[in-house]
Amino acid sequence: VLPGTLLLEAAGRAGIILKTPCGGQGTCGKCLVHVTDGACRSERRPDGPLTAEAFDEGFRLACQSWVDGDVVVEIPDASRFESRQQILVDDTGEQGRLNTVIRKVAFQLDEPSSDDPRSDLTRLRDAVGPVDVPDTLLRRLSGFLRANGWSGTAVLADSRLIALESTDTTRTSLGVAFDVGTTTIVGTLFDLTTGRELGVASRMNAQVAYGDDVVSRIRQVREKPDALATLQESIRDDLNTLIGELVDRANASGDAVYETVLAGNATMQQILCGYDPSALGELPFVQVFEEARVLPAASLGLAVNPGAEAFVFPQVGGFVGGDTVAGMVAARLDQWEKPPLMVDIGTNGEIVLACDGKIEAASTAAGPAFEGARIRQGMRAAAGAIEKVIVNEEVSWNVIGNVRPAGLCGTALIDTVAGMLRTGLLDETGRIVGRDEVDGGVSEAILDRLVSDDGDTRFLLVPAEESATGEAIYLWQRDVRELQLAVGAIRAGISILLRRAGLEPDDLGGILLAGAFGNFIRRNNAVRIGLLPAVSCQRIRCVGNAASLGAKLALLSRDERAYAEELRQKTEHVDLSLDPAFQEEFGAAMLFPCGDAERCRDES
Amino acid sequence: VLPGTLLLEAAGRAGIILKTPCGGQGTCGKCLVHVTDGACRSERRPDGPLTAEAFDEGFRLACQSWVDGDVVVEIPDASRFESRQQILVDDTGEQGRLNTVIRKVAFQLDEPSSDDPRSDLTRLRDAVGPVDVPDTLLRRLSGFLRANGWSGTAVLADSRLIALESTDTTRTSLGVAFDVGTTTIVGTLFDLTTGRELGVASRMNAQVAYGDDVVSRIRQVREKPDALATLQESIRDDLNTLIGELVDRANASGDAVYETVLAGNATMQQILCGYDPSALGELPFVQVFEEARVLPAASLGLAVNPGAEAFVFPQVGGFVGGDTVAGMVAARLDQWEKPPLMVDIGTNGEIVLACDGKIEAASTAAGPAFEGARIRQGMRAAAGAIEKVIVNEEVSWNVIGNVRPAGLCGTALIDTVAGMLRTGLLDETGRIVGRDEVDGGVSEAILDRLVSDDGDTRFLLVPAEESATGEAIYLWQRDVRELQLAVGAIRAGISILLRRAGLEPDDLGGILLAGAFGNFIRRNNAVRIGLLPAVSCQRIRCVGNAASLGAKLALLSRDERAYAEELRQKTEHVDLSLDPAFQEEFGAAMLFPCGDAERCRDES
Repeated sequence: VLPGTLLLEAAGRAGIILKTPCGGQGTCGKCLVHVTDGACRSERRPDGPLTAEAFDEGFRLACQSWVDGDVVVEIPDASRFESRQQILVDDTGEQGRLNTVIRKVAFQLDEPSSDDPRSDLTRLRDAVGPVDVPDTLLRRLSGFLRANGWSGTAVLADSRLIALESTDTTRTSLGVAFDVGTTTIVGTLFDLTTGRELGVASRMNAQVAYGDDVVSRIRQVREKPDALATLQESIRDDLNTLIGELVDRANASGDAVYETVLAGNATMQQILCGYDPSALGELPFVQVFEEARVLPAASLGLAVNPGAEAFVFPQVGGFVGGDTVAGMVAARLDQWEKPPLMVDIGTNGEIVLACDGKIEAASTAAGPAFEGARIRQGMRAAAGAIEKVIVNEEVSWNVIGNVRPAGLCGTALIDTVAGMLRTGLLDETGRIVGRDEVDGGVSEAILDRLVSDDGDTRFLLVPAEESATGEAIYLWQRDVRELQLAVGAIRAGISILLRRAGLEPDDLGGILLAGAFGNFIRRNNAVRIGLLPAVSCQRIRCVGNAASLGAKLALLSRDERAYAEELRQKTEHVDLSLDPAFQEEFGAAMLFPCGDAERCRDES
Repeated sequence: VLPGTLLLEAAGRAGIILKTPCGGQGTCGKCLVHVTDGACRSERRPDGPLTAEAFDEGFRLACQSWVDGDVVVEIPDASRFESRQQILVDDTGEQGRLNTVIRKVAFQLDEPSSDDPRSDLTRLRDAVGPVDVPDTLLRRLSGFLRANGWSGTAVLADSRLIALESTDTTRTSLGVAFDVGTTTIVGTLFDLTTGRELGVASRMNAQVAYGDDVVSRIRQVREKPDALATLQESIRDDLNTLIGELVDRANASGDAVYETVLAGNATMQQILCGYDPSALGELPFVQVFEEARVLPAASLGLAVNPGAEAFVFPQVGGFVGGDTVAGMVAARLDQWEKPPLMVDIGTNGEIVLACDGKIEAASTAAGPAFEGARIRQGMRAAAGAIEKVIVNEEVSWNVIGNVRPAGLCGTALIDTVAGMLRTGLLDETGRIVGRDEVDGGVSEAILDRLVSDDGDTRFLLVPAEESATGEAIYLWQRDVRELQLAVGAIRAGISILLRRAGLEPDDLGGILLAGAFGNFIRRNNAVRIGLLPAVSCQRIRCVGNAASLGAKLALLSRDERAYAEELRQKTEHVDLSLDPAFQEEFGAAMLFPCGDAERCRDES
């Protein structure tokens, strides 16, 4: 990661999601980690949960620590959002059953004799069960058994024989669960015999070179005949690099990986399978498949055992893909007492509401404002990006990387707008008010930051002398409009799903923020700008990389795969653009809520 | 075929088996054919079933006509052992159900719309049923549907989608049934939409170049690392040549062939699948598989539709392979009122007895005597071979090809020995008696043919001046011993199966002679030499190429495949060498039966 990255975020990028019930405010102490080598920039708050002794011993709060160089961090299981031991835990807290598709059976067959002239295949089946043997393995079977003294290990995927191994290898059985994001790919290696996680690796999706978002990648496929193959190769190479890293670190080989699970959005899943995503590039956004696919991993070009299989998550429809279904699995979305709302905020937002045994899912094009694009001085959450802004008596901010600020990323945009709303610098229509329109009680220092030209006002975040470029960094009026569009799209989707279910925000059992962005967003600010309905922040949970957790569950248990399919079948895809209320809701959501709608303020 | 070949045999080699209830004696008239161009050598017997008028119009008995050159023959359906129309007829004479694995569904899908955004796969499934779509086709699906106006034809094998075609091709669906013999391969092309036979083609199995019998081909595989691949390529090329011939003649293409069925002995089936047959080359003769295999035809290298499948017949065990099971299917072996005995006579003899819902099958190594090998002046049934011998007042014979005789083939060997037994020139131990030992009533001309040297007597068949080589052709004492070994092996197997079932020959509902050799053998002579038990010739039926018929049935109906599997499961493989009575039965069978055991004499 870049210097200056929040340790919480660095962990998240490696697939390790830490507990942050307080929303990363440094107040709950759940994200406790132990820095054993190197150093993090961090200060202990005297009123915070960390004692001075613990601090001296190297314990830190990940949400209050920034990485500036190489650092070794131990993460207590208690701090993990998903504990290694607890990955197969259902919502009642009961330990789930390790029930992998892969089963290994060591066998020692009787040698054929005149009294026992069974065929080689029958002899094997009598020992390992009624397996289907593909042609490729049956061609090897006779020679294998005779060269190997009639013993060996049969590797089964359900009832399919996928490999024959000459020694007793029953203790070696690996699998990899992948969360294939548009930007980041996370792979987690598991020992399928114990269910233990052996390692996590992640990398940038190299397809970024072909466009930041799925729309531009789909466009490539539609325009260039060989683009699908190129994009598929790109993702295959990424997956193979991660597999290589993971097995190397575990002192294993790709041959020991018999099972892979892949969860991604519809575009990513189709590209990695080699299924043409072109129809996702035009109305009415048609997917190639909905039910889960089980493919030979070899047909995806994965550097795993030649007989290994790949499970690709079921998809709901439109842009609601396998990552959303995986997230629904992780969240046990249909098992809540009160209806849960799951929201994955990104260029494309996915919104899922479960209510009365039925699930409705929608996707909505929020545009790239949350990623800092189309914001005049916006940028990605990279070195130099302001990632956090606090507006009270003065403006304070945090920058990613040990550098001067160069622009602001999505979370800072939300923070700034929320802070300006609270301070009265913005009205409900999103207009930055003139200095003379501001109510009393706002500091001079803040008022001095309002700069007006030609009737348009902007808000100074960083004076020229403090910025990386020597130019001042402002929040511009147009930036607020862009954010309003993005917020409107997400919030209109939420409102329509709630309305269809006849629910008020207060009826919700909780709001689950999934995905990377949801992990770093300040919940109170998200509510303040109206991105999320006005519920208590305690009922908003960052569930981290829920898709990754769902993929892991599907790797470790057939039951989870069946559950994924069950959830998919229960889920109706709602095309928001067809809902007569969409324009109205969108318009309403473009307006920022009144201050009294904000219940989180006291918690911030 | 070679000039001089019996028309009956020529038809058989082309896969057309004619009815021969009289055993080819020219008495029943069932093998009636119409020669419309060219000429056959044939004489009408005044006391035979053919009228002079019919003879003048070109009608002939195929069992009494020899081909000398190009000839065009029409074969009435009534003369066929298996009528084209009647191929799916069960033993009650009821028309069976055409129930092929292949089903074609033409579809016109609704174009996706906002109201109907189903995935491409779901849209297809909703139209054609719940099909499994392999990765290869799902990769094409989206582009196919859009390029093709959402219409096309889905080709299904059971519930698997095997091809997508752009026009309505539901009327075009071909399949080929193969009987893969050690020496000859017969392919029959069918229209799977109607069940009609479109053509038959046959050719020598080019593997003959690697050895006449399966044992020598297995030896090659055991000794040379690449022999299996070479032999598999050889058979693949033969199959593809036949497919090419068949589809060319039908003005079709290999792409229209979606299904193939293959029936052969265990060695042939394993070689064509690429499964190592080495274990069939040593005790206890272990097969690679028993249950039927359904493979991608592409993995066998067949020049058919890329998605086509190949059904390979189930095998019983040892040398009792798929051809025997196919023959059992054709003969409805478990549905007889009185127990049937099926015998396939060849280098390797297979014997099957069905009794009381149980089936026992054995194979026995008869050696190559029936093929003319190890006979001093023996030869294959090729040009110059004496194929038929009659010993009464004089010796008369028929030669294959319009040439002088050069040696004798298996059927002639049996005829000669049977005739000598009847005439008293051979005693029951198989000794050719001296001229002075012969009882009265034998003509001088016959007695003059007994030639003794050094106490060993031989029987003159062809004087030097009439033979092709200028050397006289004899039946030698050693030839009789070779025949005794071959007969003993088959007959001991029959006796043991009868004994195990507690049956006498008279309890049998019939003896079915399967295979090419069984088609040309004189049944009375086979009984006379003790190859078959002493039952009335009317109860001995030549069933022709029963394996080919079984393969055709399995091509046309799933039910027949299920029936094949049912028969396989009912069938126990009996290892004759383990039966304590084998040596005793073998010894007894080496002795020729007494004359009074022969019930067929009057029918000959």
